[in-house]
Amino acid sequence: MPDLDLTLPDGKLYEYLVERPAGVLVIVLIAVAVRWLVKRFIRRVVKKASQGSVPGVLANSKAGELLADLRPGASERRQQRARAIGDLLVSIATLAIITIAAVMVLDKLGFNIAPLLTGAGILGVALGFGAQTLVKDFIAGVFMILEDQYGVGDSIDLGHANGTVEAVGLRVTRMRDVNGTVWYVRNGEVVRVGNQSQNWARTVLDITVAYEADIDEVQRILAEEAHALWEDETYHGVIIEEPEVWGVERFSTDGVVVRVVLKTAPLKQWLVARAMRQRIKVRFDETGIRMP
Amino acid sequence: MPDLDLTLPDGKLYEYLVERPAGVLVIVLIAVAVRWLVKRFIRRVVKKASQGSVPGVLANSKAGELLADLRPGASERRQQRARAIGDLLVSIATLAIITIAAVMVLDKLGFNIAPLLTGAGILGVALGFGAQTLVKDFIAGVFMILEDQYGVGDSIDLGHANGTVEAVGLRVTRMRDVNGTVWYVRNGEVVRVGNQSQNWARTVLDITVAYEADIDEVQRILAEEAHALWEDETYHGVIIEEPEVWGVERFSTDGVVVRVVLKTAPLKQWLVARAMRQRIKVRFDETGIRMP
Amino acid sequence: MPDLDLTLPDGKLYEYLVERPAGVLVIVLIAVAVRWLVKRFIRRVVKKASQGSVPGVLANSKAGELLADLRPGASERRQQRARAIGDLLVSIATLAIITIAAVMVLDKLGFNIAPLLTGAGILGVALGFGAQTLVKDFIAGVFMILEDQYGVGDSIDLGHANGTVEAVGLRVTRMRDVNGTVWYVRNGEVVRVGNQSQNWARTVLDITVAYEADIDEVQRILAEEAHALWEDETYHGVIIEEPEVWGVERFSTDGVVVRVVLKTAPLKQWLVARAMRQRIKVRFDETGIRMP
Amino acid sequence: MPDLDLTLPDGKLYEYLVERPAGVLVIVLIAVAVRWLVKRFIRRVVKKASQGSVPGVLANSKAGELLADLRPGASERRQQRARAIGDLLVSIATLAIITIAAVMVLDKLGFNIAPLLTGAGILGVALGFGAQTLVKDFIAGVFMILEDQYGVGDSIDLGHANGTVEAVGLRVTRMRDVNGTVWYVRNGEVVRVGNQSQNWARTVLDITVAYEADIDEVQRILAEEAHALWEDETYHGVIIEEPEVWGVERFSTDGVVVRVVLKTAPLKQWLVARAMRQRIKVRFDETGIRMP
Amino acid sequence: MPDLDLTLPDGKLYEYLVERPAGVLVIVLIAVAVRWLVKRFIRRVVKKASQGSVPGVLANSKAGELLADLRPGASERRQQRARAIGDLLVSIATLAIITIAAVMVLDKLGFNIAPLLTGAGILGVALGFGAQTLVKDFIAGVFMILEDQYGVGDSIDLGHANGTVEAVGLRVTRMRDVNGTVWYVRNGEVVRVGNQSQNWARTVLDITVAYEADIDEVQRILAEEAHALWEDETYHGVIIEEPEVWGVERFSTDGVVVRVVLKTAPLKQWLVARAMRQRIKVRFDETGIRMP
Amino acid sequence: MPDLDLTLPDGKLYEYLVERPAGVLVIVLIAVAVRWLVKRFIRRVVKKASQGSVPGVLANSKAGELLADLRPGASERRQQRARAIGDLLVSIATLAIITIAAVMVLDKLGFNIAPLLTGAGILGVALGFGAQTLVKDFIAGVFMILEDQYGVGDSIDLGHANGTVEAVGLRVTRMRDVNGTVWYVRNGEVVRVGNQSQNWARTVLDITVAYEADIDEVQRILAEEAHALWEDETYHGVIIEEPEVWGVERFSTDGVVVRVVLKTAPLKQWLVARAMRQRIKVRFDETGIRMP
Amino acid sequence: MPDLDLTLPDGKLYEYLVERPAGVLVIVLIAVAVRWLVKRFIRRVVKKASQGSVPGVLANSKAGELLADLRPGASERRQQRARAIGDLLVSIATLAIITIAAVMVLDKLGFNIAPLLTGAGILGVALGFGAQTLVKDFIAGVFMILEDQYGVGDSIDLGHANGTVEAVGLRVTRMRDVNGTVWYVRNGEVVRVGNQSQNWARTVLDITVAYEADIDEVQRILAEEAHALWEDETYHGVIIEEPEVWGVERFSTDGVVVRVVLKTAPLKQWLVARAMRQRIKVRFDETGIRMP
Repeated sequence: MPDLDLTLPDGKLYEYLVERPAGVLVIVLIAVAVRWLVKRFIRRVVKKASQGSVPGVLANSKAGELLADLRPGASERRQQRARAIGDLLVSIATLAIITIAAVMVLDKLGFNIAPLLTGAGILGVALGFGAQTLVKDFIAGVFMILEDQYGVGDSIDLGHANGTVEAVGLRVTRMRDVNGTVWYVRNGEVVRVGNQSQNWARTVLDITVAYEADIDEVQRILAEEAHALWEDETYHGVIIEEPEVWGVERFSTDGVVVRVVLKTAPLKQWLVARAMRQRIKVRFDETGIRMP
Repeated sequence: MPDLDLTLPDGKLYEYLVERPAGVLVIVLIAVAVRWLVKRFIRRVVKKASQGSVPGVLANSKAGELLADLRPGASERRQQRARAIGDLLVSIATLAIITIAAVMVLDKLGFNIAPLLTGAGILGVALGFGAQTLVKDFIAGVFMILEDQYGVGDSIDLGHANGTVEAVGLRVTRMRDVNGTVWYVRNGEVVRVGNQSQNWARTVLDITVAYEADIDEVQRILAEEAHALWEDETYHGVIIEEPEVWGVERFSTDGVVVRVVLKTAPLKQWLVARAMRQRIKVRFDETGIRMP
Repeated sequence: MPDLDLTLPDGKLYEYLVERPAGVLVIVLIAVAVRWLVKRFIRRVVKKASQGSVPGVLANSKAGELLADLRPGASERRQQRARAIGDLLVSIATLAIITIAAVMVLDKLGFNIAPLLTGAGILGVALGFGAQTLVKDFIAGVFMILEDQYGVGDSIDLGHANGTVEAVGLRVTRMRDVNGTVWYVRNGEVVRVGNQSQNWARTVLDITVAYEADIDEVQRILAEEAHALWEDETYHGVIIEEPEVWGVERFSTDGVVVRVVLKTAPLKQWLVARAMRQRIKVRFDETGIRMP
Repeated sequence: MPDLDLTLPDGKLYEYLVERPAGVLVIVLIAVAVRWLVKRFIRRVVKKASQGSVPGVLANSKAGELLADLRPGASERRQQRARAIGDLLVSIATLAIITIAAVMVLDKLGFNIAPLLTGAGILGVALGFGAQTLVKDFIAGVFMILEDQYGVGDSIDLGHANGTVEAVGLRVTRMRDVNGTVWYVRNGEVVRVGNQSQNWARTVLDITVAYEADIDEVQRILAEEAHALWEDETYHGVIIEEPEVWGVERFSTDGVVVRVVLKTAPLKQWLVARAMRQRIKVRFDETGIRMP
Repeated sequence: MPDLDLTLPDGKLYEYLVERPAGVLVIVLIAVAVRWLVKRFIRRVVKKASQGSVPGVLANSKAGELLADLRPGASERRQQRARAIGDLLVSIATLAIITIAAVMVLDKLGFNIAPLLTGAGILGVALGFGAQTLVKDFIAGVFMILEDQYGVGDSIDLGHANGTVEAVGLRVTRMRDVNGTVWYVRNGEVVRVGNQSQNWARTVLDITVAYEADIDEVQRILAEEAHALWEDETYHGVIIEEPEVWGVERFSTDGVVVRVVLKTAPLKQWLVARAMRQRIKVRFDETGIRMP
Repeated sequence: MPDLDLTLPDGKLYEYLVERPAGVLVIVLIAVAVRWLVKRFIRRVVKKASQGSVPGVLANSKAGELLADLRPGASERRQQRARAIGDLLVSIATLAIITIAAVMVLDKLGFNIAPLLTGAGILGVALGFGAQTLVKDFIAGVFMILEDQYGVGDSIDLGHANGTVEAVGLRVTRMRDVNGTVWYVRNGEVVRVGNQSQNWARTVLDITVAYEADIDEVQRILAEEAHALWEDETYHGVIIEEPEVWGVERFSTDGVVVRVVLKTAPLKQWLVARAMRQRIKVRFDETGIRMP
Repeated sequence: MPDLDLTLPDGKLYEYLVERPAGVLVIVLIAVAVRWLVKRFIRRVVKKASQGSVPGVLANSKAGELLADLRPGASERRQQRARAIGDLLVSIATLAIITIAAVMVLDKLGFNIAPLLTGAGILGVALGFGAQTLVKDFIAGVFMILEDQYGVGDSIDLGHANGTVEAVGLRVTRMRDVNGTVWYVRNGEVVRVGNQSQNWARTVLDITVAYEADIDEVQRILAEEAHALWEDETYHGVIIEEPEVWGVERFSTDGVVVRVVLKTAPLKQWLVARAMRQRIKVRFDETGIRMP
């Protein structure tokens, strides 16, 4: 009765005891090596990116260097974040490598891995579609942080909301606006970022006076008031350049619009604007210039 | 007549009695092990996320800690939700593992599993496309809950609608606005969340007075009224900082706009605003300052 | 001439008479078992969802329970619908299982099923793309019904149209607006639902009076009229809480805006608003308060 | 020279004369059977849908039944259309079954069908992407017809255009607006349909009178005029319910807005509105009530 | 040295001289047959579509037949276009069939066709994505032509632009507006088409008169003037129905709006409108009715 | 020790020396032939397209022929561009053919080409998704050039910007507007093109006069002034048709709007408009007609 | 006991010592060769593109050459950037080639590479979907730089924001607007670029005067003032052409609009505009011409 012979068929032993264990070993070794390589690669790319050298190759970023000087501690904070992002990427890569190696080992041991691959494929597609916005948010967040577009305390405009940054996350940015409302904005939805607190700001005042007013006198008064503020001890370090009167900006339906500008320290533009408006109002009342 | 010999051919017995059962057993064991690993992994990630440590790595979330203090019970509620989300994810993973293991067993028993895989693939694509918005809504909901963007009772602005939160679901958020209308907003459609009830709020009043008015007097009156409210016993704990008059905000077509701000406890900003408006109206009537 | 020997080759008989019939039988048995399992699973999930327990885990839905009390019959209707949806899903699953089993049987009988699989794949992609909006509409409809966002007779706002619900379908919702126009809105296009008829509503009246008016007197009059209505026998059960005058809501370009609110039974908010407006008009005419 | 032996190799004869013909025959038989099943299935589903029973399960469609009564011939027309749609679907299914069977026969005869399958796959993807909007339009059209959202002669609003329906097609709907312009609207682009000619319509007149007017008198006059029209023999069957004056709808910047409504037969709402406006104008001129 | 034996191995000869040539021959024959079938099929479908019978099944297109009468030559032009489109489709099908047959022949000759199939697949996806809008434009163009939505000389409104059609292409439509600007609009971007030159048009004049005016007199004058134009010999065949005064359309902020309508031949609506406006202006000046 | 026998196994020699070299040779020959065919095909299609015969089949393009006459050199420029586009397409096809042939040769030499195919597939998908807009821009650019929608020097309106064309590229179009700003518009984003410089233009002047004005006199004056300009020697060849006064275009809130039109040479419409406006202003001042 | 014979089976030695090493060697050699070819190809394409010859073939770019002259150093900067982009592309290609070669070597050594390929496929899809916007941004950035649409210091309008360019990156462009706000705009979101600083600019002044004004005198005055500015020594090289008065641009509701234009050096348009406005205001005051 050879039919009931349950002993191992010929040649199986060599396969079971030599070929398969060896194959598994090699797979494990390669996986370890690849992980080491990938880790080093990610670390280097992220480090470079956090030092601004990747985009720097293509942009003559003198302004960027200046920026670094003006925000103390920004550099360290940036590198810290870059390291955290690098760790996250390494974790993801490790997970991927372990999974692939495990599947290859399964295959080496003689299992049909088609169901696993199909399952993974469906997962990939589902992830691709459903989590599209999630991935988009994360990628946008990673680049915002690496490019240091804004930091905690900056006053920014993200289009959907604006205010003072409270937290820069990978998926969302948290801000608080002037009314105390806390805004959570998904990073991937941000098309453009306006940062009002980098290096310097400028107070641009468009003052409308009636058509009857003497334009030369108006300009003289504006220049005097701006200069007085610039000389004022209180605004030392706040207004950082001699103010300028640029002239007639526009003929509006209400009157003639004259522009006066003052370069200020960041986040001081609104303070200076209010001080100027008060002075202008008082002076115009004195000299009888009418605002329509 | 060897043609009608219906006995089992050679070698089949070994395959039927040893190889296949062994394979099935190994598949089942591996499936159990993988499920245990995945479960532990999900639990740990969700737990970390619910403690805010995942986004916390990248954001200097001092404000976040402060927040935890101000909303008693928020922490427990958050962990409870996180656990519920974790259970859901584990269920999904278990279902996936069982399905894949079942298909591998079928294959081990000698069935062609291509139709099954194709069917699953089509299902995956159909799910990817058709249920795209559904998955998007759920993912957005999971993150909203994990990041604790708002809780029941908060007054929020989701862009599509705003009001007081009645229920935070995985797919939709339910709110009730001031008219009593109940709003169901799909989480995936929310680009930014504005929460008006976190830690503090600020009443920002832009008061327009005619161009003829004496700006200094207007500012003095506003400061006095704001201070009186701040001293008022009724508003103790409601106004949480000495109010400030910020000055001339804008020259509008109607007159000069002066801004006065009062920092308040959350959800008290509207109450304070109404009290201030009433006082200002009365005082302006007395002093003859005209609002245009 | 062995070339013309048309007798069956060796070994085919065993395959034809034993192996293939046995395989077919096993496939059929498994298909029956899987269908039974899937059916039970769908039934249980749908039942749970219809009892609100799935979203309830994550939302502290006290309001939801209250809701159930206020709409008699809603619960039964909801379960009835849930059962109908469950039946539909079971039908789809059955169709899928039969199709896959049939294809596997064909394969077992020795046909090349690649063309069938490719055909199914193309169908799947075509369905995925072309019928994307259809599937989206259905999924949205299923969730709207399971979450009981609105029922027949409710007054809702779907963004694209608003009116009284006439029918809640899986693909479209039918409403009739105040002009008698019947609106068909595709469920998948609804980003947010506003339901004006759940539990209670609130009449919010913003009354504008001229700047010259005495604000205190205006508020007193509004309070008196609101209270009179609340005392009125006709409005017993219609106004469900003592009305409140909230105070000065806004300084508009036309005058001072005072807000008065009355909590009402659902769908009674417009009736109460009209009654209040009439009383206010009459009273203002008497007291000589001017509306600009 | 056995090399030049061009006689058929062993075993080929059995394959050529028995196995392949038998396989081809079986494929053809199965194809015929499947087509018959699919045909019956489509017929049944379409028939059910056209009788409104599929959406009816989930909607308490009393209104639907009423509708059927009010539009004579609508039922037959609907079934006729449903049959046409069913025929189209059967044609498409037949084409698909023939194609797949043909490819399987080719394969049975020993040709490599991979190029065919790839070609079909590319076609499927191209169709999926390029013809996406086309398929979308057709699917939307099929459902619009099955749900009987509108018929020829109805006055509808499709968002992109509105007017009287001239033709209801599978891809486009043709309408003619009041200027005689013919509009072709793609069905898939229609998010919501507003049908102004189902069962009944309502004339809603918002009449603005100056703030000085006596509101009670205005309401009395409006009620009288509406009642007079309702009593008028000409409008018998046109106004189908006793008209109502709902009261003060709004305080606008121009004056007090009073609403009067009249329920009318479908498509008569504009006629009634014009008649009412004329009467109101005449009566207001007589009584000296001013419209601002 | 059997190693250097370069003679053909056994059995190859039969394969090279009989099997492969026969296979190639059969492929070529089938390709020819399929092309012939496809050609006939396309011809028949396009012919049917061009005769309006495909959409006609579902739409009671009495208006369509009327249309055919009113535009002489439209029918021939339409069939000519349909034939051109049919030719294009046949060319594409021929190209596809030749390509697939060529690849199958290559395979029959023993080449690995996987690279070819992959290349074709990538091409298909690239075409699907990149040329998506192109395919969309063409499909939209084909249907616009088959449905005869507009022809050269028609005055149409495509949403993005409007004017007189100069050329109806498969990808773009060329129009010239009143300023002589030539517009190229991509057919796929057209959501709805408004054709102002099919069968008839209607001049709708909304005349605003001051609130003091006597409405009855205004209506009488408008009716008289419209009737005079209708009687006028110059406008014979231009105004195609007795004009009507519909009555008070609206109470606007400027005055009372009265509507008068005249049905005209296509493209004559603007001519008639200008003539009517001139007459109304003159008559109002005479009778002292004021337009605000 | 047969184990260490490193000599070539049987049959390999024939494979290495005959079969493989022959296969490689055949692949190379076929690749050369296919490239030649594709090249000829592209050349012919592009040539036809550049002569306008492809869209011409479906459009009765008399206007197109007229156009060719009016723009000298346009024809040559167009063919030159078409040739350049053809060369680009041939380069792309050549690259594709070489790559596929190379991969087939690799396969013939016994390498597993699956990794290559997968790599290519990923590249294809990545290209399909990421470069989607790029491909879209290029395809749109190719058709714009082949259809000769505009050339250098034309004044066009692309929706996103308008101005004088400076360069027509495959990806972007460069224009300069009246302020000297240079605009780069991506071709794929252009939904419709408005070309103001093809064959002729029309100056459409809508002149508003006060309601008191005598309409007949106004029209007479406008006709006279337009005729005077048409007779003026300076405007010979600029105004290309006898001007027309179309009549009362509209009753606006400001007054009666009368339209006068003058057909001009392309790009002269603005010059003529300014001349007309000046004349009208002067004449109205003389005759005392008031513009509101 | 042959079962425990662990010596290598027959034929394996040849495979292990000859065939596999040889295969690996060939793969490595081919990979090196392909990389060299790809590198050369990328270098050549990028170089050509950076010299403007690729788009130049299709655009008669005389203006482009002129441009090169006016911006010294632009050419070098452009080539430098092109080289950097080329390096990046080569790095990506190298990475791809190494990866594919490594996988082929693994396959040659007898491992099942299906899991690797599936993993790569999922990565590709995930990258395709999630990073879609990222790839889009980069591609847009590469073309913006190669086409030299703007450089550091240019004043541009990107639709989402406008200002002076501070840095041109591959993913984002950094600008600073007049208020000192720094804007980061993602390149892929830019549909059209408006560059206000290429070669020349034009000051277009639309001056509105009251209807009573004498148009001829107004035009004479504007011409005189523009000419005086052009003669002014200060504006030598700033205004680069004799200014022109184009005439009556428009009859607005406020008055008659006269246009005067001055061609200026780039970025000087605003300076010239302000100077002109001041002069016009003064002159109009003198001559008593009223601006409404």
